[in-house]
Amino acid sequence: MTATLPEDTADLAVRLRRGERRALAQAITLAESARVDHRMKAERLLSALMPETGRSLRLGISGPPGAGKSTFIEAVGQVAIDRGYKLAILAVDPSSNISGGSILGDKVRMAALTGRPEVFIRPSPSGMVSGGVARRTREAILLAEAAGFDLVIVETVGVGQSETEVAAMTDMFLLLLAPMGGDMLQGIKRGVMELADLVIVNKADGNHIAAAQQAAADYSHALRLMRPQYDGWQVEAVQCSALNGDGISEIMDRVENFRILLESSGILQKRRVVQATAWLWAELKEDLIERLKTHPAIAQLLPRVEADVRNGEILPTMAARKLLDGLFGVSKRST
Amino acid sequence: MTATLPEDTADLAVRLRRGERRALAQAITLAESARVDHRMKAERLLSALMPETGRSLRLGISGPPGAGKSTFIEAVGQVAIDRGYKLAILAVDPSSNISGGSILGDKVRMAALTGRPEVFIRPSPSGMVSGGVARRTREAILLAEAAGFDLVIVETVGVGQSETEVAAMTDMFLLLLAPMGGDMLQGIKRGVMELADLVIVNKADGNHIAAAQQAAADYSHALRLMRPQYDGWQVEAVQCSALNGDGISEIMDRVENFRILLESSGILQKRRVVQATAWLWAELKEDLIERLKTHPAIAQLLPRVEADVRNGEILPTMAARKLLDGLFGVSKRST
Repeated sequence: MTATLPEDTADLAVRLRRGERRALAQAITLAESARVDHRMKAERLLSALMPETGRSLRLGISGPPGAGKSTFIEAVGQVAIDRGYKLAILAVDPSSNISGGSILGDKVRMAALTGRPEVFIRPSPSGMVSGGVARRTREAILLAEAAGFDLVIVETVGVGQSETEVAAMTDMFLLLLAPMGGDMLQGIKRGVMELADLVIVNKADGNHIAAAQQAAADYSHALRLMRPQYDGWQVEAVQCSALNGDGISEIMDRVENFRILLESSGILQKRRVVQATAWLWAELKEDLIERLKTHPAIAQLLPRVEADVRNGEILPTMAARKLLDGLFGVSKRST
Repeated sequence: MTATLPEDTADLAVRLRRGERRALAQAITLAESARVDHRMKAERLLSALMPETGRSLRLGISGPPGAGKSTFIEAVGQVAIDRGYKLAILAVDPSSNISGGSILGDKVRMAALTGRPEVFIRPSPSGMVSGGVARRTREAILLAEAAGFDLVIVETVGVGQSETEVAAMTDMFLLLLAPMGGDMLQGIKRGVMELADLVIVNKADGNHIAAAQQAAADYSHALRLMRPQYDGWQVEAVQCSALNGDGISEIMDRVENFRILLESSGILQKRRVVQATAWLWAELKEDLIERLKTHPAIAQLLPRVEADVRNGEILPTMAARKLLDGLFGVSKRST
């Protein structure tokens, strides 16, 4: 599919393909915009760039507050740059529209990476619902790839479903933890451990070394109880110190080994096909509900129907069918 | 809303209101049926019965294989009957259409309850997708309530999203565990602990008493790290032996205390309103996707569009919009 780009979008595409970080930033802004004309331009831009996407290693990183995510990304980012990667860091923080802040808004947090030509850093879009953040982040990954970034890190603070969403748009998911003195449940949101392809216990430095070793051993033990997602890849817990760099290079080795495993086994290709199909259906569902809510006939009926459901006066199953019959005509089910 | 019932359905309603277990079984079969005429009869029956629903205590129970769910339900069920409850037990097992079996299919499993006039037991419907099982179980709860059952236990084996679904259709969610020798992660699916209103460590008998005590203490400690869902209710872990009955009566006390808390604080009413609204939207989403898939214009386009998405030839966002524009006419977004 070839998209015809308006002149300014065509120029943006040219600059973005050249790897200009400013062009990438502008393109992501376009994709994040709620304005209809921006949205349409973004779609055309993305369509034109599709052939140049898909070639990066997409790395999801999450962890509870206090695990040291910024310091870790800074440390692993520097190792990656030294190995020749061009690095894009995207943040997913569905809470930023509530708190008004953004986890990467404070530039000081990744001072060692900020401003380097091989690095692109993008804070979470604000003022969006969770599903919207996921969509824009998927599109930002594609844009970063078209701009030549071959390592895309998607960082999430882990609000709501964000870890699941990030795991569903990346090739590998890292869970970063701090040593916690034996209490394995503290701070880890349930459901997140099983998403991890590698668990990292950070802060293995100073007085924490023994605790980090113990925690990594405990997590590794727990992880061996879970069924591996991929043949040939046992999810393990390793320790590192993002502060002094211990273990960071080994973690980057593991990341690269995982990528080799995914690529050589054909799993990467399959995983991305599944992700693209899931994205299509997620969009269809969101778009359908959006169109339903804004449809004049439905918008008029909906408050009354919702009230009847709340009051237990109508069966939700029946209410749903009647609403949709009103929109589509009587369904085959009701003849 | 008053529904006019066809003669045989009207007769079914009369018998069901009288509390006839056979009528309840027939009504649930009607609701589970894939046949259009059955489905329409079920909807009319349910609509007619709506005013008589909502008065039971809806109790969700889950736990990993080996926790002793059947024995526990049998034990707690007998205590409940002794306290005057009429008990309906419904099973949710989305895997039963794969395994061909059903967790309550083996009648021997609850021999002490089977056949008693105060007890109704219904295995999981087979041959249904997960969403369908959830819908039918919600409807079965309503039918059981209309038949006068005032304690409805929904048991799930915990496949896929079934615990979340069961928690979303019940008033209280019990998580049943076996003592596990200190390894807290073994056997518990992540994301399930946070659904629990009460955690129960079963098998506190024989050689397991010390391990069960330790496990209950460990879980209680972990649960105190989580923010309580309700003011005045700290989720705790208690121990029991379904085998010899130790602790079962105390658990039923806690269940009844929880119900009193929910009712007196108005939380029960709010929770059910939220559940009914969520059910409406779940039905709308499922029904919309169903109608989308079966719409002739879409059905013709879909395979091609899905292939393009899989091959990375079209952006999923754009593919979704184009499909829906084809169905609804061009959306406002694209003008």
